[in-house]
Amino acid sequence: MTLTIYLSGEIHTDWREQITTGAQGLDVHFTGPVTDHAASDDCGVAIMGDEPNKFWHDNKGAKLNAIRTRHGIEMADIVVVRFGEKYKQWNAAFDAGYAAALGKSLIVMHGDDHQHALKEVDAAALAVVTEPQQVVDILTYVLNGTLPS
Amino acid sequence: MTLTIYLSGEIHTDWREQITTGAQGLDVHFTGPVTDHAASDDCGVAIMGDEPNKFWHDNKGAKLNAIRTRHGIEMADIVVVRFGEKYKQWNAAFDAGYAAALGKSLIVMHGDDHQHALKEVDAAALAVVTEPQQVVDILTYVLNGTLPS
Amino acid sequence: MTLTIYLSGEIHTDWREQITTGAQGLDVHFTGPVTDHAASDDCGVAIMGDEPNKFWHDNKGAKLNAIRTRHGIEMADIVVVRFGEKYKQWNAAFDAGYAAALGKSLIVMHGDDHQHALKEVDAAALAVVTEPQQVVDILTYVLNGTLPS
Amino acid sequence: MTLTIYLSGEIHTDWREQITTGAQGLDVHFTGPVTDHAASDDCGVAIMGDEPNKFWHDNKGAKLNAIRTRHGIEMADIVVVRFGEKYKQWNAAFDAGYAAALGKSLIVMHGDDHQHALKEVDAAALAVVTEPQQVVDILTYVLNGTLPS
Amino acid sequence: MTLTIYLSGEIHTDWREQITTGAQGLDVHFTGPVTDHAASDDCGVAIMGDEPNKFWHDNKGAKLNAIRTRHGIEMADIVVVRFGEKYKQWNAAFDAGYAAALGKSLIVMHGDDHQHALKEVDAAALAVVTEPQQVVDILTYVLNGTLPS
Amino acid sequence: MTLTIYLSGEIHTDWREQITTGAQGLDVHFTGPVTDHAASDDCGVAIMGDEPNKFWHDNKGAKLNAIRTRHGIEMADIVVVRFGEKYKQWNAAFDAGYAAALGKSLIVMHGDDHQHALKEVDAAALAVVTEPQQVVDILTYVLNGTLPS
Amino acid sequence: MTLTIYLSGEIHTDWREQITTGAQGLDVHFTGPVTDHAASDDCGVAIMGDEPNKFWHDNKGAKLNAIRTRHGIEMADIVVVRFGEKYKQWNAAFDAGYAAALGKSLIVMHGDDHQHALKEVDAAALAVVTEPQQVVDILTYVLNGTLPS
Amino acid sequence: MTLTIYLSGEIHTDWREQITTGAQGLDVHFTGPVTDHAASDDCGVAIMGDEPNKFWHDNKGAKLNAIRTRHGIEMADIVVVRFGEKYKQWNAAFDAGYAAALGKSLIVMHGDDHQHALKEVDAAALAVVTEPQQVVDILTYVLNGTLPS
Repeated sequence: MTLTIYLSGEIHTDWREQITTGAQGLDVHFTGPVTDHAASDDCGVAIMGDEPNKFWHDNKGAKLNAIRTRHGIEMADIVVVRFGEKYKQWNAAFDAGYAAALGKSLIVMHGDDHQHALKEVDAAALAVVTEPQQVVDILTYVLNGTLPS
Repeated sequence: MTLTIYLSGEIHTDWREQITTGAQGLDVHFTGPVTDHAASDDCGVAIMGDEPNKFWHDNKGAKLNAIRTRHGIEMADIVVVRFGEKYKQWNAAFDAGYAAALGKSLIVMHGDDHQHALKEVDAAALAVVTEPQQVVDILTYVLNGTLPS
Repeated sequence: MTLTIYLSGEIHTDWREQITTGAQGLDVHFTGPVTDHAASDDCGVAIMGDEPNKFWHDNKGAKLNAIRTRHGIEMADIVVVRFGEKYKQWNAAFDAGYAAALGKSLIVMHGDDHQHALKEVDAAALAVVTEPQQVVDILTYVLNGTLPS
Repeated sequence: MTLTIYLSGEIHTDWREQITTGAQGLDVHFTGPVTDHAASDDCGVAIMGDEPNKFWHDNKGAKLNAIRTRHGIEMADIVVVRFGEKYKQWNAAFDAGYAAALGKSLIVMHGDDHQHALKEVDAAALAVVTEPQQVVDILTYVLNGTLPS
Repeated sequence: MTLTIYLSGEIHTDWREQITTGAQGLDVHFTGPVTDHAASDDCGVAIMGDEPNKFWHDNKGAKLNAIRTRHGIEMADIVVVRFGEKYKQWNAAFDAGYAAALGKSLIVMHGDDHQHALKEVDAAALAVVTEPQQVVDILTYVLNGTLPS
Repeated sequence: MTLTIYLSGEIHTDWREQITTGAQGLDVHFTGPVTDHAASDDCGVAIMGDEPNKFWHDNKGAKLNAIRTRHGIEMADIVVVRFGEKYKQWNAAFDAGYAAALGKSLIVMHGDDHQHALKEVDAAALAVVTEPQQVVDILTYVLNGTLPS
Repeated sequence: MTLTIYLSGEIHTDWREQITTGAQGLDVHFTGPVTDHAASDDCGVAIMGDEPNKFWHDNKGAKLNAIRTRHGIEMADIVVVRFGEKYKQWNAAFDAGYAAALGKSLIVMHGDDHQHALKEVDAAALAVVTEPQQVVDILTYVLNGTLPS
Repeated sequence: MTLTIYLSGEIHTDWREQITTGAQGLDVHFTGPVTDHAASDDCGVAIMGDEPNKFWHDNKGAKLNAIRTRHGIEMADIVVVRFGEKYKQWNAAFDAGYAAALGKSLIVMHGDDHQHALKEVDAAALAVVTEPQQVVDILTYVLNGTLPS
């Protein structure tokens, strides 16, 4: 049993690396969005030409990113969505809703201060955690049946 | 052709009433979440018993609300999601993602200041507007083929 | 918004009547299995001929009942499954799994003594209750947004 | 043709090992739930923190196990569900209903004493057996077209 | 609960009328193919122009009939397929396979002499009967829970 | 049996009216795109604001029209696509592909001069005709089983 | 591009071998039913115990075979169904209907004498042929774009 | 992450080779229709026998090609559709509609002169480009997150 896990959400800390490193040795395959913020913002106009209007600048880029993110979520067995301390992060919540509607197993990661605001997202999840290590522990348990000692 | 429209998102202004009133005479049916904030927050414990832990208090309520919101979105032909000026509104973005994954026609409503943060949500929409009257105009056009004069 | 609710499970108490009566005035439509125990057990052979082997006697009947139960669950917006005090009630758990796989909103009703044994079923539910009145309260809230006073 | 087979249900005897051993040499891949009873019961709180209330203790664990069990059933070509002599085993019946709704080929294994109580589950199955060797025989026949001599 | 029932297969006896008449008073809606044999054979060329080649003559007609038969099967809750004494009746078996793949509740009607040849079709059915009255009895039981006296 | 028929394609002749008039008395419901060419071209900017770039002017409008056309096709039992004498009509072919992928019964109408160029579209259809009256004849036959005299 | 092809139908001639041999060198994978007639008829009782009633004898076997045939059809890209000269072959027509409902590419093989009786099955096919070599030619063309010289 | 990309549309220039060559080193797999025009036109009659009527000549061929094109589109993660300068190219628009209905990520390539006529197709796309190199750039970005320098 190989699990494919899409890592969605916050791109400003090294949580993806913590999970990837912690999960070495497990039969897992990680995917996720482009995490280069500048490239992600400008990809549309860089490839398909400038737009004077910021809305269409962003629209071109967001659609290009959607090719990757939708494919990643649709191919995933598990979708992990992390909400960081800052920013609106509506794309993270959008991904969570998208994953939920597709029946994906959803793991949500966030600090306690966001608990009330994320209650609808948490209610769609099979696990709610605060730390990357907990995701590693979950993957270890789901694959091997062993718990952290 | 009757259209069923789910009105998701912000619950602190009268935008739903503006749309409902403006759409009188059209062959439309509107649905939406419970907009009584206190009832929505406490419904779980009010019916199924108190929880000392805020997480489970909210979890019970959010799941109960999910019975209504998921049904509403799944039955809808069009899902309108409005992002207001304040709050995190992650449930609105979650609904937008849920609707997008189900292939619903999505209309997003928000002010210009949220444009960049909502670019992924807007990119999944068939229309992005700022005012309730524009939703009325869209419904009028979609149903009758007539434009505002 | 009309809700169709399938009432699955225990057939030896009047819980269905309590819900149906309590929900008068709500925009709901109730369905459920045949609750005449003798007819349910013997329907197959009564219509399609006797079987000397009890397995096929039951098989013929169970398949006939499946015409009704699967249709009921597939048409339902909400599936309520009640586990009574006695008997194995594997058909109730089967219905719950069937409903969960179809993405139906699931409400499970049972006493506290069954809590541990039903944890997997409860984990798939949007609400877990002990009394019929709570189902009425949930339907009232989901449809009208009002809580019991 | 490789067949993936999910082995659901009873975890107190060595029936899974009998099937796995008997099927050596066949082009099959077996999956199943975590069968370490203690780990399965406590996985939720071990990874995500203690719960004073037994319901939430179990709820956290059951949802974590659902990541594995739903993935296993959804990926399977055949789902084998065994009902043992003891316990309620509602999760086994839930898995059978879940598999049936997804259109999986279902094989049910149980003793004669459970025949009447399992009639609805058996009626959804393509095979009903009593012994692990019969599952091996079925897999051999389905893959190679040969019958036990 | 209204049931829609598609009556497929043999068109040379009055079995459809027997069922329709017998089911008067039940909450049922019957559909079926065009049973005018000559019209059914020639509809394609009558509307879209003659074909010198019999294959295309039949092809045009069969596709036109498919508009009706596929719609009927897809809209049905129950598909009844009757195999008569004569002819190849491959279209009846095709309809049964089509209905089975869509997860429809299948009732097969045929005489004992066809039992072995129809074993695969029967194995996909929830009921196998020989007489139209049995279909009426099944519909009565499924809808009302009452058995023939 | 009521049939819902989406009339896609050419908007410069009165073929829709011919079909609608000819089908009076049949149990049919017709839908279709907005056929006011000017409104269809400008709907996006009229409601959501001007665009200096023709691409986005058209993009806004085409997405708004998609709310109606996709809903119409998805709700339809039969999709009729007419290709006229002039223009590229790629939207008609797009609608045909969209309908085919959804498994809709497809009727294509065009003159003989377009036969070779439309061979892939015709190959996905259940009927290929040249005149509106033939569509009326098909609907009459599909619903009533009667052929033109 | 690898194509998986299910070879359904007649089991009394060597048509499967002709296709398999002819397709050597192509990127194809063939599946099909158990073609050992005796094993296929008796598999159910051989593994799960004798049945005095022929109906249940056949029912047990047909369900066991369904594990293989449904899996084969569901995994296939192309389903080839051959109708031989003799027997009712209702299982072949059932397989064709099953494949058609799943949207599989269907190739039907039969002699001219069966043309009229198979018109509904042929009308659901993308190719109708008479000889195994034509299936090889089709696979060669579909994979490599080359035609027989 | 491997991406499978179906290259649909115009067959008279070397745009497929430009993309395939440019994408060397990327984890991609390209598919597409048969691009030998003569073989594509005549494949049906070459394998299944001559037809005096051009409609059926083309119909036989178009259905054979559909085995390859539908499989290609259904297996694809991304569908690229190119509209060239000449010809009706209704099959390209049909493929675009087919891909859109299946929820595939759609990239449309065409010159500015076709912009208005293709507005409905473009509106269903996640990217609209004019040059093959832009498709290479998009694939590079989607897979590696790097932009052209």
